[in-house]
This record gives sequence, C-alpha cells and structure tokens, in this order.
Amino acid sequence: MLGVLGGMGPLASAQFMLRLTLLTPAKRDQDHIPAVLWSDPRVPDRSAARLSGGEDPLPWLARGVAGLKAAGAGAIAIPCNTAHGWYDELRAGTDLPILHIVDAAAEDLARQGIRSGRIGVMGTAGTLAMRLYQPRLEALGYEVIVPESAEMEALVTPGIALVKSNQVADAYAPLAEAAGNLRARGAAAVVLGCTEIPLGILAGPYAEIGVPLVDTIDALALASIRWARG
Amino acid sequence: MLGVLGGMGPLASAQFMLRLTLLTPAKRDQDHIPAVLWSDPRVPDRSAARLSGGEDPLPWLARGVAGLKAAGAGAIAIPCNTAHGWYDELRAGTDLPILHIVDAAAEDLARQGIRSGRIGVMGTAGTLAMRLYQPRLEALGYEVIVPESAEMEALVTPGIALVKSNQVADAYAPLAEAAGNLRARGAAAVVLGCTEIPLGILAGPYAEIGVPLVDTIDALALASIRWARG
Repeated sequence: MLGVLGGMGPLASAQFMLRLTLLTPAKRDQDHIPAVLWSDPRVPDRSAARLSGGEDPLPWLARGVAGLKAAGAGAIAIPCNTAHGWYDELRAGTDLPILHIVDAAAEDLARQGIRSGRIGVMGTAGTLAMRLYQPRLEALGYEVIVPESAEMEALVTPGIALVKSNQVADAYAPLAEAAGNLRARGAAAVVLGCTEIPLGILAGPYAEIGVPLVDTIDALALASIRWARG
Repeated sequence: MLGVLGGMGPLASAQFMLRLTLLTPAKRDQDHIPAVLWSDPRVPDRSAARLSGGEDPLPWLARGVAGLKAAGAGAIAIPCNTAHGWYDELRAGTDLPILHIVDAAAEDLARQGIRSGRIGVMGTAGTLAMRLYQPRLEALGYEVIVPESAEMEALVTPGIALVKSNQVADAYAPLAEAAGNLRARGAAAVVLGCTEIPLGILAGPYAEIGVPLVDTIDALALASIRWARG
C-alpha cells in the first residue's frame, strides 16, 4: 500500500491521487494501487519555516509518516517539493522508503529525452533557498537556472498562492510568464518544482510556453506506480 | 478530521478530494479541511456481492472505517453509492457518524430548488436492486424512476465500467443517453447516483442533456464541508 503524505497543498495531493489513478494501467477497481492519503493542510508553511523562522513543520510531517505506517503503507510519496527539505530527517525517523520528488523529476527529464543541458527550475522561495534541485540535477550533468528574485516576488510566489486559494485559472498567466522567461534564458526544459505550479500551468494554454515541462505531480505518480508494480 | 472511505473506484475518491478542496472557501493551505483518504480498490465488487453472491465487501469496508478512526477521523464520508448498501452494518460497528450519500443528494436537489416531482436516479445494478434511493427520496415527497433493464445493460453498466478502466471520455455517450431517456420520461432532475457517473458525464457536453443533474461526488463534498464547518 502506498502512503501519500499530502495536504501541502490539498489540491496538489488530490490531483496526485487523480493522476496516480489515471496513469495506472487498469481494467477495473481491483487493478488499481491501494493507497492512503494523509491530507493535513495544517502543516506549518514550509517556506516560512526555512526563510523567516516560522514554526517547524517536521513534527507534523513525522506524525503523518507515522500515521501512514500505522495504516499499512509500504512506502511514502510526498507531493510537495518544499517538504523534501526535511527528507533526511524524515528518512532517519522511519524504516519506510520515501520516494524523492527530485529523483522522480530527473527520471521524467530522461523519459522526455532531455539528458543534459540547461534546466529551468521553478519552485517556492523555500525550495530555491535550500537548493533542493541543484545538487541532484548537477550530479546528473544538468545545469540549473532559477527565476530571479524579482520574478519570484512578482510572478512565482503570487502564482502559487493563487492555486492555494483555489484561484487556479488566475495562476496561469504569472506562472507561464516565469516559465517563458526561463526558456528565453536558454532552458531546454522547465521543471515545475512545486506541486501547485502544474495545477496553474495546466489551467491555461501551456503549449504556447514553447518548452518541455516536467510536472512533478505526474513524475512522482509515475515513480509511485513503478514502486507499486516493481 | 474527515475520514474518506474511498477506492470505490479510486478515480471517484480522488475526484472527491479535489472537489472537497475546491468547494472549501480558503485563502491558504491552513484554511482547508484535514482529511484522510483510505483508497483501497481491492474491496470486492459491491454489485456482484448483492446480485450474484460475490465476496462480501463488509469486512473490507469495516477495516477501512477502523483505519480511518485510528488515523483520527471524526466522521466518515463514503464516495461510493453502492457501498451504502452496507451503511447500517457499518454504523453499528463504529461510534463515528457516517454521512449518507442519499441524504447529501437530497440536500443538493433542494439546493437546486427541486422540492417535489419525478426524479431520475442512475446507479449501479446493485444500487438499483437494493433500492438505495427510493425510500429516502419518497419520504421527502419525490417520485423515483430508474433506467430500464435494457438501458442498464446497454448504457449505464458499460458506462460505469469505462470510467473504472480510465476510459472516461468514452463513458460520456452511453451515460448521457441514459440520462436523456430519464428526462424524456418526465424526470425533473437526474441524480448521478454512482460516483463514476459524474466523471463520465462531466467529460462531455453535459448541458445538452437538458435536465438538472445531481453530482453525488459534489453533493457529498458539500455535506462534508458542512460537517467540518458546523
């Protein structure tokens, strides 16, 4: 049984469950992957904890992992990029494997035939500040670029907040503009490295951005299906 | 915390989580409703159990309720109409309140201003055989009509199976035809009384069916929000 540590945000983890189902080859209910979703949106804001001394989310995350283990989970997927800033602490506190969303994103880049070059990474301010993507992608031979501070403040952070407040369609324009700026700076692909971002991007004419995209919700769902079937 | 006994099917319960989130007034993650989704698609087929002596799903359902209680749930929502055939047995085995999907559907009829008259109810063969909707809607003054046997075999049952096998768009035509037939027989509204049916209906131009619809996924999500906020 797959354990999904969600609620960060709740729309992203619901979308993860939907995509997990749709991406699973199945003919009937009983062919699908058993899963438990722990959707606790009360987890303190991950970026605020990293950047401005906000409440530590680790006890909340660890409680979710324990709840999922008690429910019978054999592995954990976390459809929130920023929460992976506490990946090592969570791994140290459980004997369950935890799928890493950056590894899943890298596998999706390879699936799309992008095996080197410059990669744009969009994410929360917390994810970028803790350099969640750079070491793992650079070890694979990629060069990582991220939005500039002014773009984060004007486009990416407000776009993520719009999704979290259910104004999904309004999030498209600022998020697509930031992705387009990364393309203009030479990105061969753009990783949507916050699970709210694909929700906003997919709510508009995303093909017009003109660059391959990595949807980290789908990437983690595909990695989860590989775990369940492997 | 809301406990969601899902997986029947898994796409319907994922959609329930998505709609629960989108229908909740919220400005940030922390405004959303904490929930745990138990998505076990291995629960034996509910219609087969009722109609042809298939394996009893009750032990699987009760295990899910117990798992949700252990996770801290304060009430249970079950986004599967047919599973409500075991409602009384589940209620007898737990001290948690279980929201009833037929009550939620009736509340949605009233919300749409439909307070009497003939109502079409679509559902699985199991739901119709056990007359899940008739006593509750008739007690409120409605008259209930359902698809004829030939329509169940040719349209409704195959449409539900298409959703369960992820062929959601293909499910629209047969399900919409069955809903249109109920309208032609004088239904003032049609209750999509199997949580796969709204997924198929919403995948096509459902406004052309020309009759008010009750989406039992949304109806149960709205009832759940009332519970969480009340």
